[in-house]
Amino acid sequence: MDQFKVIEIKQSVFADNDREADRVRARLKEEGTFLLNLMSSPGAGKTTTLLRTIEALRDQMRIGVMEADIDSDVDARAVAGAGVRSIQLHTGGMCHLDAGMTEQGLNELGTADLDLVVLENVGNLVCPAEFDTGAVKNAMILSVPEGHDKPLKYPLIFTVCDVLLINKIDVLPYFDFDLDKVREYARRRNPRLEIFPICAKTGQGIEAWTRWLKDQAEAWH
Amino acid sequence: MDQFKVIEIKQSVFADNDREADRVRARLKEEGTFLLNLMSSPGAGKTTTLLRTIEALRDQMRIGVMEADIDSDVDARAVAGAGVRSIQLHTGGMCHLDAGMTEQGLNELGTADLDLVVLENVGNLVCPAEFDTGAVKNAMILSVPEGHDKPLKYPLIFTVCDVLLINKIDVLPYFDFDLDKVREYARRRNPRLEIFPICAKTGQGIEAWTRWLKDQAEAWH
Repeated sequence: MDQFKVIEIKQSVFADNDREADRVRARLKEEGTFLLNLMSSPGAGKTTTLLRTIEALRDQMRIGVMEADIDSDVDARAVAGAGVRSIQLHTGGMCHLDAGMTEQGLNELGTADLDLVVLENVGNLVCPAEFDTGAVKNAMILSVPEGHDKPLKYPLIFTVCDVLLINKIDVLPYFDFDLDKVREYARRRNPRLEIFPICAKTGQGIEAWTRWLKDQAEAWH
Repeated sequence: MDQFKVIEIKQSVFADNDREADRVRARLKEEGTFLLNLMSSPGAGKTTTLLRTIEALRDQMRIGVMEADIDSDVDARAVAGAGVRSIQLHTGGMCHLDAGMTEQGLNELGTADLDLVVLENVGNLVCPAEFDTGAVKNAMILSVPEGHDKPLKYPLIFTVCDVLLINKIDVLPYFDFDLDKVREYARRRNPRLEIFPICAKTGQGIEAWTRWLKDQAEAWH
């Protein structure tokens, strides 16, 4: 079995999360490590997308992964098989990560020798959007079966994200999902949002997404 | 346009949510009003399932609906067209409802002349599970595209629910979703969980689910 460490992270002691997040980013900048915060609803495809992303970039970059989950090790087990350094963060029932909690993970993972770290946040469109984790960029996945009205109903997460991956486009024929409408609704919240339609299962669209990600990480050096 | 009231609900003032929830249930018992708390991830099909449920039961029961959303009126607009009394609760960014917040909604809706009230909770598998709303029964929807591993990753919500609707079974052929596995994982969390596979879009399975709901509501009288 592939090994990974499980960390029970503690509630944050920092009163000012934004300041702590800036401190985390300054440390990452110094190390030349790019941190991506990946958010979505439960089941939108964070882990499958992450596995595709690792597959596309692991020969070009040194990658680490932090899997945040309330309780389980399901995702860390999947990622450990992909041959990158990974740890499991248990939030102990908490519905999000803040900068202090993220930093506990970064310390355990060890980041000085990594180019890219991906934090897979807890599956939730509400609470994770409210806390700056210290990531350089925020990404979210919206999957086709969830519907194109989500930017109207969960506005904050679309506002704080830099990039939106629209996943499961292979099932577009079976759902009432309008790609143009979701683009319009999402850009109403965030005009500068980058949008990539993908299918993590088949690999469609992964090349454009990972090229963007690699450019971002290189610009951070 | 169909009319519905929009209520900006306030943070709860009750220190002991469980006691407040019991108080709400006692009041509902006295009125003979059954309150169902409906929870799921964003996009699992709460509103479509609710519309099907109303359609099946509105000639047999007097129904009211409370649509909780962070900010939007999208769902209340849909439900107002179904010809039942409905109100929109705005949580002001909050990720869940507790008993005090639910009571504010019940007071605005008016429940004395209703047999069944459905509370459509905020789309979130984490936080709503932690708060007793005062509902008589808790229901959750898990949709096929989310995957059958969700009871492993979000255990609490499966533990606190009385009934699980597995929605979007029309797309089972296009997803790696194992109905037997989800039953096994969910019942590991909650051996008494009632489970109904449904397709809210086509109406499949709605008869069995609404029969169960009607029986529960009648037993509450």
